Amino acid sequence: MPGKLYLIPVPISEENGLQHMPAYNSEIVKSLIHFIVEDAKTARRFLKLYGYSPIDKAELYLLNEHTKSADYSELILPLLNGQDVGLMSDAGCPGIADPGAEVVKAAHEKNIEVIPLTGPSSIVLSIMASGFTGQNFSFVGYLPIEKPEKIRRIKDLEALANKGQAQFFIETPYRNEQLLETLLSTLAPQTQLFIGKDITSKDQYLKSKPVAEWKKTQKPSVQKVPVVFGIYRW
Amino acid sequence: MPGKLYLIPVPISEENGLQHMPAYNSEIVKSLIHFIVEDAKTARRFLKLYGYSPIDKAELYLLNEHTKSADYSELILPLLNGQDVGLMSDAGCPGIADPGAEVVKAAHEKNIEVIPLTGPSSIVLSIMASGFTGQNFSFVGYLPIEKPEKIRRIKDLEALANKGQAQFFIETPYRNEQLLETLLSTLAPQTQLFIGKDITSKDQYLKSKPVAEWKKTQKPSVQKVPVVFGIYRW
Repeated sequence: MPGKLYLIPVPISEENGLQHMPAYNSEIVKSLIHFIVEDAKTARRFLKLYGYSPIDKAELYLLNEHTKSADYSELILPLLNGQDVGLMSDAGCPGIADPGAEVVKAAHEKNIEVIPLTGPSSIVLSIMASGFTGQNFSFVGYLPIEKPEKIRRIKDLEALANKGQAQFFIETPYRNEQLLETLLSTLAPQTQLFIGKDITSKDQYLKSKPVAEWKKTQKPSVQKVPVVFGIYRW
Repeated sequence: MPGKLYLIPVPISEENGLQHMPAYNSEIVKSLIHFIVEDAKTARRFLKLYGYSPIDKAELYLLNEHTKSADYSELILPLLNGQDVGLMSDAGCPGIADPGAEVVKAAHEKNIEVIPLTGPSSIVLSIMASGFTGQNFSFVGYLPIEKPEKIRRIKDLEALANKGQAQFFIETPYRNEQLLETLLSTLAPQTQLFIGKDITSKDQYLKSKPVAEWKKTQKPSVQKVPVVFGIYRW
């Protein structure tokens, strides 16, 4: 009998500890020995936060952007040997905007049971908080880096938003300010722009406004902080 | 100073009580008097589950598919009068696949602070558990009812899935069996089909397989139970 793969959320903002986490997650975490993680140091910090002890009990397996697809079958070996495994990303819900989905894929291919746990996801909280339709939305990850391609992509997303599908995306934090400027100079004045900044932290900022209004009002500082952007026409 | 609009998740499956809910949500719920809800009876049951007492203290304002857009400004009146308000749907996270987004929109238009709380969403748990890419996905709500349109829509979604965007959708529970049959007869054999059934309940079933394999194996019974479907090509 193979083990079960638990998808374990971690806090997005650490200042509030486990405030946004169901207590049940701690029970599951404490029952596990094997963990697939993005970074060992971060993972140990989260395990401690979840009340895991002694910390040396945890066996950590690394999964990050350098992990080759051939390695995924190795990562799930404990599962095939009947051990339960926890998958944690660096922040938020594993499998959403991180490399975790590849491990889940490998698990399905081996008929291993996958059990997602509830926890904070900045993308999901943004979709909820935007006021954009919750019946039809996309999360499309990162936009292209080069400016002409970035502008083309923004216009494509705006066209989809005009047809009724809300579009959400992210950027590397040190490029957020530049992306915000490009959004304001590219989008139509009536297009709604959502900015979700520092979600679940004390500086949380979540706001939807038409582009024309964003241009007139003071904008939040988005440089080097985690932000989810969204566009829609209502 | 206007009040704050809290988006309050409720359990998807009631058998586990608040197992998938952060304790912090109860604190917020107990501090509120005004609630915008889909159904008064269901809402009172959830308030009790959250430890709300006395239950008569809660003032409930109805929001459902019969609510006209002119009524949204009335729903947010307590907010304009400086009172905090909680928005709850019948199951899961408000603002995702329910009428709640319209209230959030009205709040943004009046510059009211919107605070989403973390909780279970069958759509989000499905995206995590599918193993499909978490970098590029859509949730597109309900498919058309008439069969020719339904088939056309499935083919359009399959084309998007082939281009790298995972597609998730739902159906009215009593039409689930029919949708599953149409999916299996319409999709290409190599297309991955995800079925997420009875999520967070003891009968939870979450599985991704190629269509060719679904056709060979015993399928879960999906009739009259809540199911999230997904398609992708990996």
